[in-house]
Amino acid sequence: MKKIYSVMVENRSGVLSKVSGLFARRCFNIDSLVVGETFDPEVSNMTIVSSGDERTLEQIEKQLNKKLDVIKVKTFMEEQSISREMMLIKVKYNKNNRKDILEICEICSAEIVDMSKNHIMMQICDTPEKIAVFRSMLSGIPVVEVARTGTLALPKCNDTEA
Amino acid sequence: MKKIYSVMVENRSGVLSKVSGLFARRCFNIDSLVVGETFDPEVSNMTIVSSGDERTLEQIEKQLNKKLDVIKVKTFMEEQSISREMMLIKVKYNKNNRKDILEICEICSAEIVDMSKNHIMMQICDTPEKIAVFRSMLSGIPVVEVARTGTLALPKCNDTEA
Repeated sequence: MKKIYSVMVENRSGVLSKVSGLFARRCFNIDSLVVGETFDPEVSNMTIVSSGDERTLEQIEKQLNKKLDVIKVKTFMEEQSISREMMLIKVKYNKNNRKDILEICEICSAEIVDMSKNHIMMQICDTPEKIAVFRSMLSGIPVVEVARTGTLALPKCNDTEA
Repeated sequence: MKKIYSVMVENRSGVLSKVSGLFARRCFNIDSLVVGETFDPEVSNMTIVSSGDERTLEQIEKQLNKKLDVIKVKTFMEEQSISREMMLIKVKYNKNNRKDILEICEICSAEIVDMSKNHIMMQICDTPEKIAVFRSMLSGIPVVEVARTGTLALPKCNDTEA
């Protein structure tokens, strides 16, 4: 079972360490963690994906709510959410493989964000499953560097909400 | 001065807590932190943006290299990198503001990823500056929820590299 925690925290030094420490001490599994700003400079937002049985996932929520720096915890199941990941990937190209690279970019809606004579950097922003497909489609191309975020998620649009 | 650390770490429970604890204990400032997978399931990649004077930034690099779970640290300056952030934003719409929303999406290359009768969710994946512009363009529209990653970055394409 996968659950997503959207946690509003005080934007203070040490908060990330406290929250990740909570997971580490109790051996709760973090599948993915994303920290970002919000519209309010004093508040940061963490999106944490965790997997486990129902009891463990409830425990995590309770423990998060106990933390002083935590303002608000919202949880939702993976299937009720829109999930996205971003990846930057730099590959080597030449005359022989550049057509393949362009076609793969087009199929996967990846975007070329930088290039030099021998290297191309691409950006893709999609569901974790589609990112995996893109990655496997590039398997014949020499990869130089990759950077990837964890999963960012929000509950699906629903008119019953405020 | 802003520096970007691309840190390869063992994909083990507790590593994030150790790395973020290092920053917290020494009061090093984390502007942004992104954790993601790599092609190797045993290795995770962290992208950390930190600001400070040259001495502090060197200290951080040394301390990171001392950590047992850290496999490799690469550092580069912000201006030598391609930096991207991703944001999901859910807003309320109606007949009066939906044209504005569509125009802003088109101008900013944001994408609509979900909708209901009264809500629209958009995804944008761009430089931190462009994300800020998009955010401010939406200022008249009622925002329901936002989730945002930190900065993901790779050094620009450069043919002298391996």
